[in-house]
Amino acid sequence: MGSAVARRLAGAAAGPLELTHIFDRRAALKRGAFDDISSSPPSIIWTNRIDDLLTSDVDVVIEALGGVDDAVAWMEASLLGGKSVVTSNKQAIAHHGPELQRLAARQGRQIRFEAAVGGAMPIVRTLGEALAGDRVRRITAILNGTTNAVLSQMEARRCSMEEALADARTRGYAEADPADDLDGVDAAAKLAILCALGFGLRIGPAEIETRSSAATTAADVEKAGRRGEAVRQLAYASYDALRGELIAWVAPAAVPRESWFAGITGPQNAAVISGAFAGDIRLCGTGAGGEATAVAVIGDLLAIARDRSAIVPAPVLSRPKRIIGVTTYSAECAEPAGEGLLCGFSDLRGDRAGRAEAV
Amino acid sequence: MGSAVARRLAGAAAGPLELTHIFDRRAALKRGAFDDISSSPPSIIWTNRIDDLLTSDVDVVIEALGGVDDAVAWMEASLLGGKSVVTSNKQAIAHHGPELQRLAARQGRQIRFEAAVGGAMPIVRTLGEALAGDRVRRITAILNGTTNAVLSQMEARRCSMEEALADARTRGYAEADPADDLDGVDAAAKLAILCALGFGLRIGPAEIETRSSAATTAADVEKAGRRGEAVRQLAYASYDALRGELIAWVAPAAVPRESWFAGITGPQNAAVISGAFAGDIRLCGTGAGGEATAVAVIGDLLAIARDRSAIVPAPVLSRPKRIIGVTTYSAECAEPAGEGLLCGFSDLRGDRAGRAEAV
Repeated sequence: MGSAVARRLAGAAAGPLELTHIFDRRAALKRGAFDDISSSPPSIIWTNRIDDLLTSDVDVVIEALGGVDDAVAWMEASLLGGKSVVTSNKQAIAHHGPELQRLAARQGRQIRFEAAVGGAMPIVRTLGEALAGDRVRRITAILNGTTNAVLSQMEARRCSMEEALADARTRGYAEADPADDLDGVDAAAKLAILCALGFGLRIGPAEIETRSSAATTAADVEKAGRRGEAVRQLAYASYDALRGELIAWVAPAAVPRESWFAGITGPQNAAVISGAFAGDIRLCGTGAGGEATAVAVIGDLLAIARDRSAIVPAPVLSRPKRIIGVTTYSAECAEPAGEGLLCGFSDLRGDRAGRAEAV
Repeated sequence: MGSAVARRLAGAAAGPLELTHIFDRRAALKRGAFDDISSSPPSIIWTNRIDDLLTSDVDVVIEALGGVDDAVAWMEASLLGGKSVVTSNKQAIAHHGPELQRLAARQGRQIRFEAAVGGAMPIVRTLGEALAGDRVRRITAILNGTTNAVLSQMEARRCSMEEALADARTRGYAEADPADDLDGVDAAAKLAILCALGFGLRIGPAEIETRSSAATTAADVEKAGRRGEAVRQLAYASYDALRGELIAWVAPAAVPRESWFAGITGPQNAAVISGAFAGDIRLCGTGAGGEATAVAVIGDLLAIARDRSAIVPAPVLSRPKRIIGVTTYSAECAEPAGEGLLCGFSDLRGDRAGRAEAV
């Protein structure tokens, strides 16, 4: 993602934005590999010392390092140095977003993270800004492009997960080790961020019970197909504010073939956000890949550039009284779960009790 | 919509917002009808004199009058008086948006209009902010909830347009005179706004060629159904920046039954936005009704309340060299149009030339 952003910013389409520094621990090596970036504006400074960036007079730092501890430390240092921050780092935001937002507000700077969830699908803005005037009740989403590419490929090609994974790697949709994707760790971090934006709740990603999609077999997918269903990794959260009860989980689920989620194939992400007043809002877009994520990052940069002195107050978050995971949810709300799948999941429109109406 | 916003603001859920004045030409009459509003905070001032509002010290004026001339004059007066403006008035924004935005920027105030297009579907923010970092190439959308409710009802009930319209009126989806909805005047105004946001183009709504959906008969819908297609009123715009060529039209079109647009029923709005980098972003939501539109208005109010001194520069718009309408488009890019419908419309994913791949 970092190189996609750098290429766009170094190119002609950058508008009011100017790329001044690129920090990379292996700057010398990387610089050689990116002829097009290093050869365009000669003013770009490549460095392997983070201090060159922190002590410079740049307005905004884009964090594209990954990992948590170093990334958070450098984002803090950037904010303390009077720089705004744009990040795509879901783990850092899921774990330390509220602190970073408070620090940013105190410093009169901004931290923006549209790229942390859903790639180019604008779900952070939609939940945080467009639906700020609603009371969000439920979020049902496909948040991991890799797992969706694998599961939808198993369905289309009637192949094993191994084969689908190999294909996804060839297309650049999957890392060498897809465990965080398949197990739901990635989606759980994103869902924790959405719970903060949509419900005003602070929960750790580890508090979201996940059921792995790694064990889903070709036979599971075929069996679901015979029942008129497709298997998708869903991330689900609903909040009963009166009772302080949050249902939140990530799990492979069998969804009706005519449903919207069954139609989401390849590395797409999708979400249905249900508001008390707006009803259902649906979003869908490319969930992974450097180019799509770079669009979200540059959108955030332009929002900061438009008004560098904008004040974005940190959100006030509370804790749910109770968090219900997939085990309890599937016992109470779904059919008996065969094959580790959440079956009979038809809660795409109905509420928790009246879950009869499938999309 | 005005009363839905007033009820929400007068209620508990208004957060940092306080409703101080309600202007209505028939304030005395209206006040009686809205017991719940007038009886809640006793401080609300009802008035039939716009000057009471313009000379007050309110921070934001919500324009929910409809019409163009008076509405624009009062929005200008509000901005000149140092007030920001939130409006749902698509005709006013389509015709005078750029001037109002310039005036707002000069005054250090904001004008926001998420509610003018797509109801609760956040397409204004998505095009104007989230995708500011992309190069938008094409917008295909259902922008008129009334027409969509009527056409999808004709399909579901195999009934005449008259019957479908009567049903839509009963449900509150259609006005007594639905001509602007069916003829495409409403959707063309919205599409002109989207062309400014997505392509940076200034075009008048009247420059968008429309083909009316009013003449669509039960036989047309049935015939399309036999071909595996559904009839929808589509608003379409694509821009070739190199050639300065804009294709823009509103027309009833036959879309494949498996396509996304065929699945949009009732008063929903939907859009597929195609960007050079992000690929396709899809949005869908309730396109009409006071409650859904009020969500968009309150989202805009909260954005202004968050930072009242925010500077939003007016967009720089250009003119297309050529505007291609539905007549030319259908001759060049679609099958021969029987029954006044745009048939063989499969340009939902492919580009203008390679239009083979249907969604």
